[in-house]
Amino acid sequence: LLKGGVIYPALPQPNFKSLLPLAVHWHHTASKSLTCAWQQHEDHFELKYANTVMRFDYVWLRDHCRSASCYNSKTHQRSLDTASVDLCIKPKTIRLDETTLFFTWPDGHVTKYDLNWLVKNSYEGQKQKVIQPRILWNAEIYQQAQVPSVDCQSFLETNEGLKKFLQNFLLYGIAFVENVPPTQEHTEKLAERISLIRETIYGRMWYFTSDFSRGDTAYTKLALDRHTDTTYFQEPCGIQVFHCLKHEGTGGRTLLVDGFYAAEQVLQKAPEEFELLSKVPLKHEYIEDVGECHNHMIGIGPVLNIYPWNKELYLIRYNNYDRAVINTVPYDVVHRWYTAHRTLTIELRRPENEFWVKLKPGRVLFIDNWRVLHGRECFTGYRQLCGCYLTRDDVLNTARLLGLQA
Amino acid sequence: LLKGGVIYPALPQPNFKSLLPLAVHWHHTASKSLTCAWQQHEDHFELKYANTVMRFDYVWLRDHCRSASCYNSKTHQRSLDTASVDLCIKPKTIRLDETTLFFTWPDGHVTKYDLNWLVKNSYEGQKQKVIQPRILWNAEIYQQAQVPSVDCQSFLETNEGLKKFLQNFLLYGIAFVENVPPTQEHTEKLAERISLIRETIYGRMWYFTSDFSRGDTAYTKLALDRHTDTTYFQEPCGIQVFHCLKHEGTGGRTLLVDGFYAAEQVLQKAPEEFELLSKVPLKHEYIEDVGECHNHMIGIGPVLNIYPWNKELYLIRYNNYDRAVINTVPYDVVHRWYTAHRTLTIELRRPENEFWVKLKPGRVLFIDNWRVLHGRECFTGYRQLCGCYLTRDDVLNTARLLGLQA
Repeated sequence: LLKGGVIYPALPQPNFKSLLPLAVHWHHTASKSLTCAWQQHEDHFELKYANTVMRFDYVWLRDHCRSASCYNSKTHQRSLDTASVDLCIKPKTIRLDETTLFFTWPDGHVTKYDLNWLVKNSYEGQKQKVIQPRILWNAEIYQQAQVPSVDCQSFLETNEGLKKFLQNFLLYGIAFVENVPPTQEHTEKLAERISLIRETIYGRMWYFTSDFSRGDTAYTKLALDRHTDTTYFQEPCGIQVFHCLKHEGTGGRTLLVDGFYAAEQVLQKAPEEFELLSKVPLKHEYIEDVGECHNHMIGIGPVLNIYPWNKELYLIRYNNYDRAVINTVPYDVVHRWYTAHRTLTIELRRPENEFWVKLKPGRVLFIDNWRVLHGRECFTGYRQLCGCYLTRDDVLNTARLLGLQA
Repeated sequence: LLKGGVIYPALPQPNFKSLLPLAVHWHHTASKSLTCAWQQHEDHFELKYANTVMRFDYVWLRDHCRSASCYNSKTHQRSLDTASVDLCIKPKTIRLDETTLFFTWPDGHVTKYDLNWLVKNSYEGQKQKVIQPRILWNAEIYQQAQVPSVDCQSFLETNEGLKKFLQNFLLYGIAFVENVPPTQEHTEKLAERISLIRETIYGRMWYFTSDFSRGDTAYTKLALDRHTDTTYFQEPCGIQVFHCLKHEGTGGRTLLVDGFYAAEQVLQKAPEEFELLSKVPLKHEYIEDVGECHNHMIGIGPVLNIYPWNKELYLIRYNNYDRAVINTVPYDVVHRWYTAHRTLTIELRRPENEFWVKLKPGRVLFIDNWRVLHGRECFTGYRQLCGCYLTRDDVLNTARLLGLQA
């Protein structure tokens, strides 16, 4: 195939030829290092480049124009009024110059795309990619990983320390900071280093012992089975910060379980049950009438939350205490849901998936509350815990600014 | 049919008889005022009461037990370990006493249910009901409704004033408070009356003129077409508070459009397009590098968000400025999405759906940012606006505590 004086290595043609409804002319070029072929179809533009076959809708190509009149590069916002684009638009001409494609539209407007930008931003180019890389773990995997804690000073005063911490946090869903003065003020300072603190009905920073000052079992000495917090918020809190300031007594170890590791086992063993847990919407509820505290909160969403295009899990809501009445699906689906919930629970309760840690003054634990479940051993004696909730958006914001993928 | 000495009015039997796979014994009773019939099937319990035919899974019936050992009525949390319930559980005996059903399980545990509680909490009993009642409006409907503003003092100092305000807000998605001293402090006091203020990358209270101090077109004098805010947060802010403290110039009217009214038109005219807008996940992005402000936020979700069981709309994300690259679906779905987006945009832009209001010092506007789109006319002169974002969960919390349905 010869196009513009460039000999193009024979492509695996058969599968394309058969695709072509019309006698369509293939355009090929082989710039110094890269080979690229494209084809203007009746209703879309097909591009083969960097081992990726991509198909673009013409309205999409016009709508994503990054020219000065269509896109404000200072605010990174679209200026083009998408509703002004003719839904039947087709390019008048298409031209490739080195690694840039030029589309000229019927009104003369020109849109240009860098080939690599298209690969990175196309459906085909990104659908296999995960939004956030993770390492799933059971107790053995996590212990063997020997994930280093970050020292308080390095965490607070250097970008390297902060980036190291966030890298671990994003990968494993838990991370520790050491040598932190055991006070609420220092815990707050730590939290604000990576995100905005999310004020909730529990205040900005919370501080509790076992005095049952709030209408929640957390404020007792009882053991708490593994769960995620604030499932009764429409968006559960993204991150939970725990700092045990004092404990004079026995027990009170903290249990951590990687919910995504457990969910992955369910996906492998019973994909239809994984699917059901990601489809059936549940209500979680928090009703409080203790002393001055009166609250009634309801959050609605499935146990497992996935991105539809790549099936990537991004949130698990699991709290048997706060799970309200299941009345969003008929009885037969309810029964299948209980079966799926049981399969997930069995995985979450496997001893080998349980990572136990004793929180001590000076060692602050950050938990990804969308992924890692926590629980607690019952305890005796006086125990003082402080912490807070962070908004996930803001933690990911900090991570992106440090160059991490999130 | 005679059961326990009570003559039971002939029921419309045919449709039930044919349902019965086994020769199953119907239990009927007609207490003084109510008629009730139930039937123990192999895999579920069927109940006819208050003109509702309900079916309950047996695990559900055991799992929702409100006995002292299964449910902590002080914290309103489940104590029962759901994983301890045999997935094949069936009741040993079922007895009805007046309006209470008693299920005795194989281990002797007894669970009781009030018939009305079952109706209220069953799938069949609630699937038709909306979670939050709303009155959808175009400009004419809203103006004719003559929704009264609430006076600042009544709003701040009486539960009636607060409840009246919240009732209007929940029904219409917008509400006004009058006679508010035009200061940021008073605006903050108003906001805290109904909810926690949500701290974001814009701070707790924001305060802006047209000095482009932030990387967003809002900080210019340009006209802004209708949109919802913070679509680049995983959970867009629930409520937006606007108080124009000063404006010496022309233009600058605020545009309000009921997104749910427009979406309802799409549902009527093109249900498959409504469905597509509720299925295709989009990314919205905020990238900022202005002065000291560096942020990169990404929110993922469809334009229309509905509860799957009753198709009730609860959130619309519509922001053409912040809509990032569409790459979560193939090109042919992309094209159909643009068509659906166009249909919705046409409805949103019908002049008759536009409610224009000039914000003046002393009159504070609360907008349900999950439902009502806002925009702005370009303006001249010095304009000072302050406001904040409120978390939706916390506004609904306040509404529920005042006895409102939310």
